[in-house]
Amino acid sequence: MKAAVLHAPNQPLTIEDVQIDKPGPREVLIRTAVAGLCHSDLHFIEGKYPWPVPAVLGHESAGVVEAVGSDVTYVKPGDHVITCLSVFCGHCEHCLTGHMSICQTPEVKQPPGQAERLHWKGQKLNQFLNLSSFAEQMLVHEHALVKVREDMPMDLAALIGCGVITGYGAVVHTAKVSPGETVAVIGCGGIGLSAINGAAIAGAGRIIAVDRDPVKLEMARAFGATDVVDASAGDPAAQVLELTSGGVHYAFECVGLKQTVEQSFGMLRPGGTATIIGMVPFGTKVELHGADFLRERRIQGSAMGSNRFRVDMPRLVDFYLQGKLHLDRMVSGRMPLERINEGFEEMKKGGIARNVIVFD
Amino acid sequence: MKAAVLHAPNQPLTIEDVQIDKPGPREVLIRTAVAGLCHSDLHFIEGKYPWPVPAVLGHESAGVVEAVGSDVTYVKPGDHVITCLSVFCGHCEHCLTGHMSICQTPEVKQPPGQAERLHWKGQKLNQFLNLSSFAEQMLVHEHALVKVREDMPMDLAALIGCGVITGYGAVVHTAKVSPGETVAVIGCGGIGLSAINGAAIAGAGRIIAVDRDPVKLEMARAFGATDVVDASAGDPAAQVLELTSGGVHYAFECVGLKQTVEQSFGMLRPGGTATIIGMVPFGTKVELHGADFLRERRIQGSAMGSNRFRVDMPRLVDFYLQGKLHLDRMVSGRMPLERINEGFEEMKKGGIARNVIVFD
Repeated sequence: MKAAVLHAPNQPLTIEDVQIDKPGPREVLIRTAVAGLCHSDLHFIEGKYPWPVPAVLGHESAGVVEAVGSDVTYVKPGDHVITCLSVFCGHCEHCLTGHMSICQTPEVKQPPGQAERLHWKGQKLNQFLNLSSFAEQMLVHEHALVKVREDMPMDLAALIGCGVITGYGAVVHTAKVSPGETVAVIGCGGIGLSAINGAAIAGAGRIIAVDRDPVKLEMARAFGATDVVDASAGDPAAQVLELTSGGVHYAFECVGLKQTVEQSFGMLRPGGTATIIGMVPFGTKVELHGADFLRERRIQGSAMGSNRFRVDMPRLVDFYLQGKLHLDRMVSGRMPLERINEGFEEMKKGGIARNVIVFD
Repeated sequence: MKAAVLHAPNQPLTIEDVQIDKPGPREVLIRTAVAGLCHSDLHFIEGKYPWPVPAVLGHESAGVVEAVGSDVTYVKPGDHVITCLSVFCGHCEHCLTGHMSICQTPEVKQPPGQAERLHWKGQKLNQFLNLSSFAEQMLVHEHALVKVREDMPMDLAALIGCGVITGYGAVVHTAKVSPGETVAVIGCGGIGLSAINGAAIAGAGRIIAVDRDPVKLEMARAFGATDVVDASAGDPAAQVLELTSGGVHYAFECVGLKQTVEQSFGMLRPGGTATIIGMVPFGTKVELHGADFLRERRIQGSAMGSNRFRVDMPRLVDFYLQGKLHLDRMVSGRMPLERINEGFEEMKKGGIARNVIVFD
């Protein structure tokens, strides 16, 4: 099958013929329909995070089951599925207390360089986050997918698998925003827009979008933002404090920079909570005023939106089909696998929400 | 009446004859029975935090109602009460959503220098935290006290008013520790011992006490610690991570230093929560590894144990009378008001839990 291979950081991906194994007892072979291009992929392409090469990236996808292992009963060939990197074991303490997005059981969540599912020129080709979606087929653990309605368009279903669940889940599961509470979202890419959409679904009273890009701020309004703050016009924390006469109940950081994390904590009212969705680079420390904790402010990380994706993703599909989740506006461009490098170039330039790879 | 007056930072308190007003409509005049010496008082004596002088410090006390204002129906003369600095208005958003410990309504929580209840030599004498317990009488808002059973000893009741509710509440209300979860407590003074005792009442599975002082670690065992870590023997975070094979569910910081705050965050398992009880000096920033948020770690402040003290303190009295709350072990020394400076000197030397002032 064809796959886009990363050979080294900061090099273009190349399309290669690669081999994929047959399903083991608890594995599922999927014919990839659509794969989204996510900023996290770009971070790995740019070497900001390490991953063993050669590798096939991609971790936001939907497809059709092609074959299942001998022990798999949850899906059968022909089922439509969304994949998720939050592969869960289902029996550790995290899974059993509803926190499967931080499951680390190595038998299902294979550490970088461990998975033996892909091969190229007789050598191991590293699978990425137990998925590797930039390929015509994926071989995954049965706990890395969820079955969805067949009337759900595949290109939009793919987005739910990473960006949407991450932003929506941070609002609904990690922070648990209640109706009428005030929310600020820093960074209005795919994840930030999904957080805004999640806040609207959760009934937030006021939703403040923060970004430097006027195009994204305009999109934010379409996703449910009631106010926008131009981060290039001055300290966003000060702007939000003024706009809300003292701060928001919840801030969501969707960028992954020291500065924006600190801003998210700085725009909270007493008792408020900042939730960090962005990936702050390893080694970077954030600096917080100790005295800001005195009035019960809180800062927390959200891993993939604290999802329980088998439960959540079918709900998100329903939300889309009911007109509550604005996935149509999130896809900026559709392209074949051969044009994947162009898709990432456009992402670097900014001003777009999400490009997706559509397979034949 | 007699009161201990602070004239300037780092000077001994002096005992003076001072005037106290008659109760206004919603005020209560209390004959002070017992007042605890708290580290927070010492911070203000030492000028680490500013407070307008001259002032009467003290904020952990119990007494008997002497007179009530025209609108007060909750207590009558002769009732036994515990005071609390968490005076609440009862009608702001914080109060109405169960977070009265961060109520800031100025009509009840008068800012430093505003209260006009005490006078000395014809001038205003500043009330401290709406209480000023180092005095024979206190004039307070009716929402700064709770009525308690008369079979509760006054000296032990006083401790509940600040240190005990702060440590206990951080565990039970702010963090909401569940039975069987693991807890670490950094700093085993009055607040830390109360956090340990609270963790034991809440059914925590393993309670790890961290301190440099072997006397305090021994006391910690008496309050319910199952393990002790000598902080002088190496990085406490590393010791706790090893002891627990990967970190605790909950860490409680009861010191108020940058270093111990960072340690509390560093000893968490994925999904774990650090709760900051200590008062980090204004201007001090804490530095946290951004990547530690990826697995849903959380850090939050606790203000006076997120108390709802009218509800909680009667329960704590019952816990004491049932033998679950070990207040007897917490009082190190009892002394008259005239020896208050000696009491603070002993606190500075360390090795004691709590000295209390007993009035005639």
